[in-house]
Amino acid sequence: MSLNNFFNPKSVAVVGASNSPEKLGRQILDNIIKGGFKGAIYPINFKEKTIAKLKAYPTLESLPKPVRSSLLVVISIPSACVIPEIQKCAVLGIKNIIIITAGFKESGEAGKALEAEIKDLATQHHLNILGPNCLGLINTWHKLNATFAAADTETGNCAMLSQSGAIGAGALDWLKVKDFNFGYFISLGNKAVLDENAIIEYLAADKKIDLIIAYLEEVADGDKFMSIVSRLAKLKPVAVLKAGTSAAGGKLAMSHTGSLAGSAAAVKAGVERAGAIWLDNLEDMFNLMMIFDKKSWFNTGSPELHVITNAGGVAVLTADEISRQGLPLGKSQDLLGDADATRYELALASCLADKKVNNLLVLLTPQTSTEPLKTAQAIINIKKKYPNKLIMTSFVGGEAVAAPRQLLSENKIATFDYPEEAVRAFRHLISYRSLVKDLRTFKRSENKGKKAVKDGDYLKSLSLLKSYGFAVAKTFAYDAAKIQSYNYPVVLKTVGPDFLHKTDTGGVVVNLQDAVQLQTMAETLARKNASLLRNPGNYLVVQEQAAKFHEIILGFKRDAIFGPLLMVGWGGIYTEVMKDYKVAISDIDMAGAMKLISGLKIFPILNGARGQKKFDVAALAGALVKLGQLANDHPEISELDINPLFVFEKGVAAGDIRVILG
Amino acid sequence: MSLNNFFNPKSVAVVGASNSPEKLGRQILDNIIKGGFKGAIYPINFKEKTIAKLKAYPTLESLPKPVRSSLLVVISIPSACVIPEIQKCAVLGIKNIIIITAGFKESGEAGKALEAEIKDLATQHHLNILGPNCLGLINTWHKLNATFAAADTETGNCAMLSQSGAIGAGALDWLKVKDFNFGYFISLGNKAVLDENAIIEYLAADKKIDLIIAYLEEVADGDKFMSIVSRLAKLKPVAVLKAGTSAAGGKLAMSHTGSLAGSAAAVKAGVERAGAIWLDNLEDMFNLMMIFDKKSWFNTGSPELHVITNAGGVAVLTADEISRQGLPLGKSQDLLGDADATRYELALASCLADKKVNNLLVLLTPQTSTEPLKTAQAIINIKKKYPNKLIMTSFVGGEAVAAPRQLLSENKIATFDYPEEAVRAFRHLISYRSLVKDLRTFKRSENKGKKAVKDGDYLKSLSLLKSYGFAVAKTFAYDAAKIQSYNYPVVLKTVGPDFLHKTDTGGVVVNLQDAVQLQTMAETLARKNASLLRNPGNYLVVQEQAAKFHEIILGFKRDAIFGPLLMVGWGGIYTEVMKDYKVAISDIDMAGAMKLISGLKIFPILNGARGQKKFDVAALAGALVKLGQLANDHPEISELDINPLFVFEKGVAAGDIRVILG
Repeated sequence: MSLNNFFNPKSVAVVGASNSPEKLGRQILDNIIKGGFKGAIYPINFKEKTIAKLKAYPTLESLPKPVRSSLLVVISIPSACVIPEIQKCAVLGIKNIIIITAGFKESGEAGKALEAEIKDLATQHHLNILGPNCLGLINTWHKLNATFAAADTETGNCAMLSQSGAIGAGALDWLKVKDFNFGYFISLGNKAVLDENAIIEYLAADKKIDLIIAYLEEVADGDKFMSIVSRLAKLKPVAVLKAGTSAAGGKLAMSHTGSLAGSAAAVKAGVERAGAIWLDNLEDMFNLMMIFDKKSWFNTGSPELHVITNAGGVAVLTADEISRQGLPLGKSQDLLGDADATRYELALASCLADKKVNNLLVLLTPQTSTEPLKTAQAIINIKKKYPNKLIMTSFVGGEAVAAPRQLLSENKIATFDYPEEAVRAFRHLISYRSLVKDLRTFKRSENKGKKAVKDGDYLKSLSLLKSYGFAVAKTFAYDAAKIQSYNYPVVLKTVGPDFLHKTDTGGVVVNLQDAVQLQTMAETLARKNASLLRNPGNYLVVQEQAAKFHEIILGFKRDAIFGPLLMVGWGGIYTEVMKDYKVAISDIDMAGAMKLISGLKIFPILNGARGQKKFDVAALAGALVKLGQLANDHPEISELDINPLFVFEKGVAAGDIRVILG
Repeated sequence: MSLNNFFNPKSVAVVGASNSPEKLGRQILDNIIKGGFKGAIYPINFKEKTIAKLKAYPTLESLPKPVRSSLLVVISIPSACVIPEIQKCAVLGIKNIIIITAGFKESGEAGKALEAEIKDLATQHHLNILGPNCLGLINTWHKLNATFAAADTETGNCAMLSQSGAIGAGALDWLKVKDFNFGYFISLGNKAVLDENAIIEYLAADKKIDLIIAYLEEVADGDKFMSIVSRLAKLKPVAVLKAGTSAAGGKLAMSHTGSLAGSAAAVKAGVERAGAIWLDNLEDMFNLMMIFDKKSWFNTGSPELHVITNAGGVAVLTADEISRQGLPLGKSQDLLGDADATRYELALASCLADKKVNNLLVLLTPQTSTEPLKTAQAIINIKKKYPNKLIMTSFVGGEAVAAPRQLLSENKIATFDYPEEAVRAFRHLISYRSLVKDLRTFKRSENKGKKAVKDGDYLKSLSLLKSYGFAVAKTFAYDAAKIQSYNYPVVLKTVGPDFLHKTDTGGVVVNLQDAVQLQTMAETLARKNASLLRNPGNYLVVQEQAAKFHEIILGFKRDAIFGPLLMVGWGGIYTEVMKDYKVAISDIDMAGAMKLISGLKIFPILNGARGQKKFDVAALAGALVKLGQLANDHPEISELDINPLFVFEKGVAAGDIRVILG
């Protein structure tokens, strides 16, 4: 359903409007009036005749009929009374609703049940509902502030979605002292009906919006998010700040310890797959707002960051940070400590006249001849001549730089207290370009015809790999009658549910040179594990031993939100110790797989560093793509590891497998 | 010579004082007067009778005699006229001088020569000279502002040294809007005579100073710095911001590519060895000033950072950052969005009453019931009850939090725009404690009796190692007559100056199983390298082949400032690829060596991870200590690599060596 009337209602009704100024319903009404909303405003209150000088209506039913289809209803009444109001809306044909009221999913079982009712009503009657438990909606382009937060009324080209009311409130308060404005502010609340995906999809087509920033506590639907954002990201940047990634390091342990692909890793991989900018923290979020301007971000010229300064030391520290962030450093021009505004002006003019200069950071510290305010004005003037070039500033100091910083900010020139902040903000421009370069629209391709895997049997699992075109090291169930037919040396393994960590449990014997050695060892293992081997899932297998390979681990773990998360890393005993692995969403292609693999620390060795032999990286990438397809086709597999995957000079082969269902 | 009179002069003369307000000499004079200096102030000017209502003196000679020993002379005249003034000082027995004037070392050959003269005069006549090319000196405790920068006059317990006038000017301007003050501000300028070491040594004994912050563009004398600071650091934190570390990554390549131990790595190792706090950037420097307070820094209780918040999302983001920084996270208490000041007050009281709580970060975003100003006051009140506990704040927002932030700052409660900044600042407290724990005073122990090494001959170099107690893999010059006596398998190598990268040049053959194989291969190599082997420095050696070892690289490279920089890392083909190495200053002891080694990524493998065998880490640490001593004893060796060092289950042995002199 279109959100057009939701974002741009012709009239607004506030259920719970009141003559008590401390009531949220009244504060919302006041904000709607103060914001200058041009349509009709209807306070709904059973008792009052007028509220805030407006005629009050006793119920939604009593409103004039024609407004209903383009009416937005904001509900701020006790949670127990909310459902009947929604039902009324449904009956009356009112489609667009904001539920401010808290006391739903976040407050226990009873609230959860109420919220489920809201969802049901929305589905039945095609209702657009924002919230519950939210701050509301602001559309500055429509002069609509339907929140209980005081907010600036100026329009802007940034839309902010916030799943936290508190962070939303902080951001709105922050805007008041910054010369930055939102086009839309959407407080998502509990996301019972409208979630970030629905909102972003609407914003995609909205020409007034050039930048979308979302603070999320969880992603509602990973596939939908990746599909919507990967379509949109090339046209307008989407940036995500996700709370709760702190266990990232810890959780992102190895697959076979059961903790890989914790959702922190998955959400980061998913956001990257979508082509969205990953924000590290609040500072990062606000700084991105400061630095974004559409024209310079879509200027696809040289990416170097150039520097003009009156303080050599500050420029050196800036270069340190540019280098630390791995960003392209341009020229650094030191105008010396006695540079006045004229010297800055000349330097700016000649620097920006250079076609290769697209990104410039102007540094200044207040020294004896420095003219901070005049210099700020010079920067503002020249920016007008070069709207497609990014100009950032950092005037380092306090008293002497306060007014010039203010002037720059008022004129939409990004200004930062410290040059390092500017550099970190600039990082997002560079990473955005790299994210959307060759960005494919996400689509999960599932081959629905595949027969579901029934158990994690070792040999069957190897066969499953083969059916996807994987080479597999020759492996047979141990059979004393056939021991003469194997190509020696061989490896003997005990496999099955009780032997998932074979190396640790001594369930693997390598380098068996002939049939006699094999038989002796097979008998020893059979004796040692006699009781476990009574379970037919556990048995002995013989594998012909590979030579001249590199050991890689390949696997996936299914994430509840983003689906199978692929993992490739350095295998063998190094997997855990070196933490050398990368993860990706399962719809990976060859180019993506090559890029992922080339990010491994071990990559130079695979690729033949220092005169060593070169391993078949392309075959490894191919295996990753195949594994992604397998993962998509078999939703019944929750986890799969190939460890080791032997990577040879030509080709690869799976050396071991572990499959977990459920 | 004591700097007591330099920092606390009884009287000050300004050579170059003038009646032209734009002259630096006049600005300095004005600042001295405005600062409220209690002693006599003497403008020196040949023409004027009075300057700034003070009696002017034509020359230094014309000053009343008794003041000279406790007089500070500030010189701000053209550079060509400076030397004669210094000579006058020397003759008159004036010891304490600041040269503001620029145009010396930084301006080319002529200036360099002038600066050398200044140095000579200072040495001859025991003069304390600050500068030239500096901003001057501020001692707020003495009401002395002998700089041309306007500055606050309030006293403080932090001393700042700055090698950049511009950064000093920025910092002084910054102070004006912050409720933070310097005790001393020292602009180091060209450091012709007084450098950071002399100043820090003086500050060590000054009870008014609790924190020393130095912005340095280069360290004057590494050994002196490490010796002074390692004595002082336990008593008062010293923090260093070093510009120009950006090539760190690049330069810190491997020793055998000739680029290890570039000075960026050495200065970081040296600062750490000294027990000083390493600052990453300007933001870091200012934030450290905000967070430092002596009582809470020296509270040695539980190090966890606890959090009180009215915004769950912000607390989660804060926990993310705490975890990302590897800091100890305490409890996080969410007072919920409708928390008023009273709820904060109660929570603060009960949280801080807990003896285990020593570090607290209070978060707030302005929501409907929030009382930011009252909450700030509550924090200020409770801090008075707990002066030994660190309380930081981050009120996230703009307009609504501006006044409370200001109030907190005025009351010396650290307040940050974003919680992440607070967390990054807090990192320094934790790292300081770890730096000074078990900190040994630096002293370079050189055994002066050692005979200097004359060349990098391979077998002699191995003998040098042996003389330091190193085990060395059995190695002999190849001798066809003795091939029956070796223990096979053996390795055959071509060594010498033309074979420094033996693996790359094919100069190593491993796994020779018997005398026939050895002889055949020796003849092949001799033929292949016939022309190079005419140089007697190049020859063939035979080495008995080691088994069951781990390959480590050990080495040092001599840094011009900090002396030999030791390096230990993962050896073999992984050295370059994995960049798994650590560096340290050469006076390392066993504990330090163990700590360094345990920081290697490969350490868990050496230490027997995942049921693998355990290698002799203690012997490896011992080798590092021995190598440090060797490096100290042999200043003629500029670079030495042992690659590989075999680490066995018991003991270690050098497998190869490369020594470079000069």
